[in-house]
Amino acid sequence: MNIAALVAYDGTRFAGFQRQAADKGPTVQGEIEAALQRIAGEAIPIEAAGRTDSGVHATGQVISFQARKLDAATWRRALNAHLPEDIAIRAAQPVPDDFRARWSAQARSYRYRILVDATRSPLRERYVWRVPGPLDVEAMAAAAATLLGTHDFGAFGSSPRDQPKLGIRGHTVRTMRVVRCDWSAAALDEVECDFTADGFLSGMVRRLVGTLALVGAGKLAVAAFQAILEARDKAHPGAAAPARGLCLTGVTYPAGLVDWPG
Amino acid sequence: MNIAALVAYDGTRFAGFQRQAADKGPTVQGEIEAALQRIAGEAIPIEAAGRTDSGVHATGQVISFQARKLDAATWRRALNAHLPEDIAIRAAQPVPDDFRARWSAQARSYRYRILVDATRSPLRERYVWRVPGPLDVEAMAAAAATLLGTHDFGAFGSSPRDQPKLGIRGHTVRTMRVVRCDWSAAALDEVECDFTADGFLSGMVRRLVGTLALVGAGKLAVAAFQAILEARDKAHPGAAAPARGLCLTGVTYPAGLVDWPG
Repeated sequence: MNIAALVAYDGTRFAGFQRQAADKGPTVQGEIEAALQRIAGEAIPIEAAGRTDSGVHATGQVISFQARKLDAATWRRALNAHLPEDIAIRAAQPVPDDFRARWSAQARSYRYRILVDATRSPLRERYVWRVPGPLDVEAMAAAAATLLGTHDFGAFGSSPRDQPKLGIRGHTVRTMRVVRCDWSAAALDEVECDFTADGFLSGMVRRLVGTLALVGAGKLAVAAFQAILEARDKAHPGAAAPARGLCLTGVTYPAGLVDWPG
Repeated sequence: MNIAALVAYDGTRFAGFQRQAADKGPTVQGEIEAALQRIAGEAIPIEAAGRTDSGVHATGQVISFQARKLDAATWRRALNAHLPEDIAIRAAQPVPDDFRARWSAQARSYRYRILVDATRSPLRERYVWRVPGPLDVEAMAAAAATLLGTHDFGAFGSSPRDQPKLGIRGHTVRTMRVVRCDWSAAALDEVECDFTADGFLSGMVRRLVGTLALVGAGKLAVAAFQAILEARDKAHPGAAAPARGLCLTGVTYPAGLVDWPG
């Protein structure tokens, strides 16, 4: 039986999602696969829609795996009982045999939170990038709007399929479907940057936000931001924003494939 | 110079606010006094408005201390540079010589967050008490309303001045000025319980919330809740809710004494 699961995690203590050599530190994939093995008594590999970096969080990651026993609801309960508190299986359901969390996905959505304050806020410190401000959020929104549509995003990241040793360079064209940069309705001192695209290059959201923050700080004009995008060259003043502010909030699949409750 | 400071902290890793023997673990007071000593080159004791328990958070704790040098703004910057990331001095200002954070306070405000969900939410796990629900929040609000005014709250906590070895029992009468139990506007799956009183007994907010949750779960009628209050006896079914959901959100002083920015 093929099972898809909706996964949330606090990425703070993990060396990213993807399984690594043990000396790199714990990974979300490693924890989930260890829990699967304890429950099933055999190794069950998982596939995930997004390979989040070290320190990046998720409320809407999706994984899939092949199970020889138990139903989806039982897997959800058993996994939650075996996983540490900073990982949760929010939902699980059976999916068609050819469903694969990564390859079936049509789009991923990320949110980046920026706290505009001169002083740190300990209860949000793990989940926001704090900048002293002020930020011109209207200018950031104008710059972000230039990202909509299909572009070569090479200025903001590398293809996950780059294999420099083999001389292979993956392509860096992606289609950005939704961008939004605005003050949060829930926290008056926070700016939210939301992105939905068919795919993201490695480090792309963090580099986009770091560069948009230059626009917000008045250090980069909107036209200069657009020129960076069009130049497709990573040599520009926009540095990657810290991982802690980033969260994978959702994955889109063709209609009818997965239908999470609530 | 007498200085008052507004303090925020993530209480997760602390053995409470108040300085303890070293083997009990780190405390917020211990960290702040260590930072003061490093900056001033001498021991400077602090006084705090609320002695929060182990695991309890604060966004609006207030401390006061006597400084022989530096102005309030410099103290804020220097303390933030010397404190760990889970403690922040949000503001600091000079106050009259007779100001004392604890004794000058007229009221304290606490918020307790309850997440109503069958599955854990890793990004909020440190800051909420999760219950599977459902909760009848209207019934909780009706029960909470019976707390308004001056009561003997002995059913919900002990006086911080109890000294059992000396046969001394502190009094347990407090005046509750504000109570509110309602769904959060920011997070649709969270209930917020807000309390403002002239003072709180040890463990009082957590016991109140634990007992209100029984009302919400339909296990205790509103009239039975009120009867527990009136019986002034801690032998009742309401257990203390976990520390992680509790946050000291503010302290009230006589008008004009302290005036925090923002």
